[in-house]
Formats: sequence, structure tokens, C-alpha cells
Amino acid sequence: MLADEILKLERAALDRWGKGDPDGYVEISAPEATYFDPFVEHRVDGLPAIQAWLEQARGKVKIDRDEIIEPLVQVIGDAAILSFRFVSYGSEGSMRWNCTEVYQRLETGWKIVHTHWSLPKRGA
Amino acid sequence: MLADEILKLERAALDRWGKGDPDGYVEISAPEATYFDPFVEHRVDGLPAIQAWLEQARGKVKIDRDEIIEPLVQVIGDAAILSFRFVSYGSEGSMRWNCTEVYQRLETGWKIVHTHWSLPKRGA
Repeated sequence: MLADEILKLERAALDRWGKGDPDGYVEISAPEATYFDPFVEHRVDGLPAIQAWLEQARGKVKIDRDEIIEPLVQVIGDAAILSFRFVSYGSEGSMRWNCTEVYQRLETGWKIVHTHWSLPKRGA
Repeated sequence: MLADEILKLERAALDRWGKGDPDGYVEISAPEATYFDPFVEHRVDGLPAIQAWLEQARGKVKIDRDEIIEPLVQVIGDAAILSFRFVSYGSEGSMRWNCTEVYQRLETGWKIVHTHWSLPKRGA
């Protein structure tokens, strides 16, 4: 099932991320991918720029345990929109996130074309 | 051009939002839409729930001036991913946002199927 396939891609990339290895995400991102997270000043456009940004985390992030919460995949032809909440415990303390990943079916398989990670204001 | 059409839809909904009217967004959202913003505890799933959430802002938000910054539309068949930064000045003070809107071409026209608004941590 497509939802499971997409979720498995994300989970595998997250597993590597949690060990300080950003290459899992780099490998499943499309050349034209765009990227938001809470810490970057602008949207990051294109895989080389995303790769450079993620590279800063290499060897620094250490996630001890985490959970993808209520993942949902919405499919529109060759696009799949994965959204979920995420909690992690590790080098950055306890973190809660919202995440949107838009995947596109390319000749090389399903690749991320847009990422949006954010920090919700709990209790706000 | 599709990018212009999508951007015009978003701009019109934002204009109404900035006058305290959430119906602009309600009218261009699909029944199955999903929604993240920084203030809601869970992802909001489905138009009725989104409508109820946005309704709380009716008559309260007043945006005096704003700007959509560096909008980009990525098209995948019947899906269009609009991403941009947004700054606004008004009842909530000066606010900076990241935004992702996934639109889908439906029989009723282009409708939002997924929204992700977030507050970046500037200077973090």
C-alpha cells in the first residue's frame, strides 16, 4: 500500500537522522526539492542547498527514542502528502514537531519535493 | 498561468482573513482537507473541523498590512504545492510565518487539501 511505502521511506530517513546522519533524507529528496524548518531564515530551494543545510547536523543529532504520531498520506496522482506530528527525546531534549512531506513519484522512485518541519506552541 | 491562479486564490483568502473573515479559506478548502498551525494541539482533519477552528478567529484578526514573500508553486499533475513566507502587521503585532498550501484540482476548481502554517524561530 502506498501509504505504508511512503511512511517506511520517512521512517528510514528519520532513523538515520536520529543517529546524526542526514544522508537518509538527502537520498530520498528530489533535485528540485524545497524545504522549511523553524531555524532557517529562508525557504531552502534545491537539493544542493538542502544538503548543505542538513550537513550542519551531521554527528550532532542523537535521538534516543521518538514517535511518528497519526501519520496520514493524501494521494493525488503522482503526489503523496504525508503529514504527522513527531516527538523525540535525545540530544535536543524533548521536542515536539509538526511535519509535512510532499513526495512525488519520479523515475527514480518516490522522492521528497517539499518539506515543512515546525515547532507548535504547546499550550498557546 | 497556474502559479498565478493559485497565488490569486491564496491572496484573496488572506485578504478576507485579515479582515476577520475566515470564510475565504473555508470556501477554497476541500472536504478532506487537513490542517496544521502552531496553536492547535492536533492536526485538524476535515473541513468541518477546520471551519470550527478558524471560526474562533472571526472578527478578531485585523491585518493592517502584509506581504507574501517568495511564493513558489510546484505542480505535480492535479496537485499544486504553494510555499511562501508571510509577514503581517496588525492586531497580533508583527508576525512572521512559513506556509505550505497543497491545492488539488477538483471538479469544483482548485481547492486546498493540506495547510501548514508555522512560526519560524528567527535568530535561532
